[in-house]
Amino acid sequence: MCVMTDSRLSPLPTPCLLVDEARMTRNIERLAQHAAALGLSLRPHLKTTKSIEAARRVLPGGNGPATVSTLAEAEAFAEAGITDILYGVGISPDKLERVLALHRAGCRLIVLLDCAAQAEAVAAAARASGIAIPAMIEIDSDGHRSGLTAQDPTLVEVGRILHAGGAELCGVLCHAGESYGAVGRAAQALCAEEERRAVVAAASVLRAAGLPCPVVSVGSTPTAHAAEHLDGVTELRAGVYVFFDLVMAGIEVCQIDDIALSVLTTVIGHQPSRGWTICDAGWMAMSRDRGTASQRVDQGYGVVCDAEGQVIPGLIVIQANQEHGVIAKRPGFDGPIPEFPVGTRLRILPNHACATAAQHQNYHVIPDTPGAALKTWPRFSGW
Amino acid sequence: MCVMTDSRLSPLPTPCLLVDEARMTRNIERLAQHAAALGLSLRPHLKTTKSIEAARRVLPGGNGPATVSTLAEAEAFAEAGITDILYGVGISPDKLERVLALHRAGCRLIVLLDCAAQAEAVAAAARASGIAIPAMIEIDSDGHRSGLTAQDPTLVEVGRILHAGGAELCGVLCHAGESYGAVGRAAQALCAEEERRAVVAAASVLRAAGLPCPVVSVGSTPTAHAAEHLDGVTELRAGVYVFFDLVMAGIEVCQIDDIALSVLTTVIGHQPSRGWTICDAGWMAMSRDRGTASQRVDQGYGVVCDAEGQVIPGLIVIQANQEHGVIAKRPGFDGPIPEFPVGTRLRILPNHACATAAQHQNYHVIPDTPGAALKTWPRFSGW
Repeated sequence: MCVMTDSRLSPLPTPCLLVDEARMTRNIERLAQHAAALGLSLRPHLKTTKSIEAARRVLPGGNGPATVSTLAEAEAFAEAGITDILYGVGISPDKLERVLALHRAGCRLIVLLDCAAQAEAVAAAARASGIAIPAMIEIDSDGHRSGLTAQDPTLVEVGRILHAGGAELCGVLCHAGESYGAVGRAAQALCAEEERRAVVAAASVLRAAGLPCPVVSVGSTPTAHAAEHLDGVTELRAGVYVFFDLVMAGIEVCQIDDIALSVLTTVIGHQPSRGWTICDAGWMAMSRDRGTASQRVDQGYGVVCDAEGQVIPGLIVIQANQEHGVIAKRPGFDGPIPEFPVGTRLRILPNHACATAAQHQNYHVIPDTPGAALKTWPRFSGW
Repeated sequence: MCVMTDSRLSPLPTPCLLVDEARMTRNIERLAQHAAALGLSLRPHLKTTKSIEAARRVLPGGNGPATVSTLAEAEAFAEAGITDILYGVGISPDKLERVLALHRAGCRLIVLLDCAAQAEAVAAAARASGIAIPAMIEIDSDGHRSGLTAQDPTLVEVGRILHAGGAELCGVLCHAGESYGAVGRAAQALCAEEERRAVVAAASVLRAAGLPCPVVSVGSTPTAHAAEHLDGVTELRAGVYVFFDLVMAGIEVCQIDDIALSVLTTVIGHQPSRGWTICDAGWMAMSRDRGTASQRVDQGYGVVCDAEGQVIPGLIVIQANQEHGVIAKRPGFDGPIPEFPVGTRLRILPNHACATAAQHQNYHVIPDTPGAALKTWPRFSGW
């Protein structure tokens, strides 16, 4: 039986979310040092943590610059005094009133777009309000999702609509989303170089057209860590690196031992004929994210650790129902596994930190200082 | 372009959750009538809706009997006056203090278990508190997850520990989880019959051993709808039928037109070279649930409807990032599709209503009455 030796965790109801502060701090410092070595400003993505306390740790100076994925995040962080925020999802016209309200409240919220209709809506809102809404143009380096290429005449058209129309054309931004499928540092460095080339080329096209382009922004957790030089780039973005997860470990951006986020769970039963242990971390606690399913090692719904966070060799959550996780040996593992009586506490490392954290309302933070009391950091959600 | 003709939806920020009240009412009435025809008490599972207002609609009499999947649900529903609740997930000893607190507050909370260690913990808590904690023994009919068979000597052992130990042995319960993979009413009726036989056999074993077994409970949404007779059963359970979803439509428990839950979304961009429309319903709004991936028709992250809820032939959300949904033709569809300018509103039908609803804090309910104002029903979450 796994005996819980950390008495700070015993009173926590399960399932719940744990953060290992020492690992989180190490992850934050790693990328901060890399950005400094590259000579770049870091604009962390706060969509992973959605927590004021976590944001303070990750933001240079504590109040920005930051990236968010929803206006609800922007509003919560602005309320907490973070005043330089990029809303990194394409803007739609119906959201511009909330963008303007944030500006009136003192937050410089930068919007993102990649077509003329969006640029016209932003420019019209800027003229109508007298607020020169700052905007970035999204550039595509890998066909992953959104964005224009440097060769697309729409790029200059969009730039002109913004610049001439009363908005503030801040620059260009690229996110090499395909890098999440690139395994190993060398492959990720190639994605980083594609990302850099695409966005630097776009900046050159805008400047050659007489348009301003002060900011040249790149980033994803894999490319941000792998980039060897980022000439022509001014800003680096990344999000999930704060916690890391099994997907990031699977593509070798981190080690499993770097993962700072886990779900604390309790054993609630067994199916002895199948070798199953049933725990109370189902997909509601882990999320339905199966990001490792397409990787070399499929981690099921997560890697099982003892209550102290030490990986138990060979055990994963092989399937999940809403409030049931089924723990069993991973395919091909023949070694012995411990017995887990009902009531045993375990930790599960998640496939995808952003998705797992989103299922919870609080982080229970295990402080770096031995014996110090747990801290509770609230999370927010919604749009 | 899809023009939004229902002006009640225009002010809603997207993504957000919509409930079609007329469809929900129809779904609720369908199963209520079937349960009445079978002569059974219905104990709906409230894990799907997690909403007081929705619970009132689905519960016979408005205050129970009910099933929940977390103690947080039990506490919220008990606070609202629902006093007959089954906690349908295996109990662990650390949760018994909260179970007792609910009893002291006037809620008859029934726990579920399938091993001697759990029964001993429940009996000990009952003796120590003077509260005869009501407990059901979980029975397995299909090897899906948890439960004992009638043949397992542990069944009588567990019954005796509860009955002699100061707890209240209420009966036996079975959930035919494998029925979610059975396509069509005939196959589901077979699952229902297996579920019935397994639990009735277990009840006979307990009674033959001189133990009480007043409640014989079965249910899953597929088996509850398909069961042709349930002789020996006293109680029927089901949850997702209130809303239904694409997984249930895929196994023919309902039609797509019965689905009462959808996510309202806004178009935020395009990738014309790939025929992609980008919307603001990513996996954060839809959940990562890909329950239709293993069905005959893979619905991606959801079926695309116009803003009024009419299915647009051939369109699904083919992939999702955190706050981006990629809308495109489903594989094999060659027909024309409409243009969706930036700002267009659409609705997405979910794979799995429980998972999608859990990503949101509120339901925006479109009332049955034409022109009546939308209602907002808060949801809760956590454990």
